Amino acid sequence: MKSFNSRLSDHIAVKQSWLCVGLDINPENLFKVNSTLVELKDHTKKVIDATREFAAAYKPNLAFFERWGSKGFTWLEETMDYIGNSTITIGDAKRGDIGHTANQYAISLFDHFGFDAVTLNPYMGRDSIDPFIQNPEKGAFVLCRTSNKSGGDLQNLKGNSIRLFETVAEYCVGLNGNNNVGLVVGATAPEEIKLVRKYAPGLPLLVPGVGAQGGDLETSLTAGNTNGVALINVSRGISFSGDQSEEAIHNAAKDYVEKMRMILG
Amino acid sequence: MKSFNSRLSDHIAVKQSWLCVGLDINPENLFKVNSTLVELKDHTKKVIDATREFAAAYKPNLAFFERWGSKGFTWLEETMDYIGNSTITIGDAKRGDIGHTANQYAISLFDHFGFDAVTLNPYMGRDSIDPFIQNPEKGAFVLCRTSNKSGGDLQNLKGNSIRLFETVAEYCVGLNGNNNVGLVVGATAPEEIKLVRKYAPGLPLLVPGVGAQGGDLETSLTAGNTNGVALINVSRGISFSGDQSEEAIHNAAKDYVEKMRMILG
Repeated sequence: MKSFNSRLSDHIAVKQSWLCVGLDINPENLFKVNSTLVELKDHTKKVIDATREFAAAYKPNLAFFERWGSKGFTWLEETMDYIGNSTITIGDAKRGDIGHTANQYAISLFDHFGFDAVTLNPYMGRDSIDPFIQNPEKGAFVLCRTSNKSGGDLQNLKGNSIRLFETVAEYCVGLNGNNNVGLVVGATAPEEIKLVRKYAPGLPLLVPGVGAQGGDLETSLTAGNTNGVALINVSRGISFSGDQSEEAIHNAAKDYVEKMRMILG
Repeated sequence: MKSFNSRLSDHIAVKQSWLCVGLDINPENLFKVNSTLVELKDHTKKVIDATREFAAAYKPNLAFFERWGSKGFTWLEETMDYIGNSTITIGDAKRGDIGHTANQYAISLFDHFGFDAVTLNPYMGRDSIDPFIQNPEKGAFVLCRTSNKSGGDLQNLKGNSIRLFETVAEYCVGLNGNNNVGLVVGATAPEEIKLVRKYAPGLPLLVPGVGAQGGDLETSLTAGNTNGVALINVSRGISFSGDQSEEAIHNAAKDYVEKMRMILG
């Protein structure tokens, strides 16, 4: 039985790709604004077909499915079937609740939907994370320093001489007994990636914020892949690239992976 | 147009009830362990029928529905229809994501499912909360000091002389321009309820942790309802009370509300 973190490293090495393709498909970003759920589903399949060759992981964002209620969850179930088992899947859910409830979320994300890993929120402490890391084969990326504008409002608060996100990085090292804990650190905070790497050598990083949010690819990729691996997530920058044709999406993914291969030599 | 916080206070005053009935229905807690989704749905309706007279609010916990995927979300849609519009509904979702994604969650919880209010996680700062508080009629209870065992691991970290949860309480006062922001403070931390009340007078509190988790009803209720209102949430202590008959559930809810009326005079 291989731990999630080992499986991720091996997968990245074999595929020579650090690209996580985020699936955030909404009508406002499709050329056809009043698109139906069928058109959104078709576009999702198009993105998957166009990027299979390059994606080290797919990261469906649950919010974009939940928006449509039970029909949206049917779409997520179909999406997971369509992706299949040859690529790593990360459920971007950012859940965080007390143990009893967290356990229900773990059943949902791992057993029902079949994700290999999830994103989690650390605010409620270790018993909100424990139910997700009991099985070494399944992984959890815990929010550390996020890419949004107000991400620092609480995360940069200083206590005992270090900031909250630094404490979270240290805390997660302590949770990594099964080698299946990682961290989310935004590409819009490249200095923080370097710092997180010092606190948490070896823990895989999931780095959102490249592309539409303006994060720097080269710095994030290099800092993240020193002493560990880092997946760089791109969502809108791939899914809605150019004229939104399969070719445009394919070329966007290809460009990202070729740049990554060049940067990491 | 009445703000959510005003509507909640009025509703509590008219009904003379501070009871929030949490809907966390899982097969492990039903007498029939291998219960089907149909049996879980029947039990949910039974709990609602048995408690309508006493519940100031219902709080479906999304985890317990998500566990069953699209079928679980159909169950949640049916549950929201069954509750109807005469009682306040709080979607216990604890979501927290960047603005773009938070906006999708707000569409899901307010527009699709029709909740009056939601629970949110503050870790990502104000732009993860803003999409939920634009409409004054809809409310948001932000996690402040939670009731679980490891709740204090991060929430009690001290920065600039006050602890993280105190900072969150202050921060949320600053977000309350539309009079629709509240706080979640666990009954297992009664001293913290008093402290939160000092930082955030007037903000409604949602207090979980009474009943199965062992929080103290009298202290929480009294401290929470000084300078503002507090809803006390009970989930398992009502839904799975006694022999799980409608009568047992009815009596449990009645007992709680009668105790509350006595405590608050």
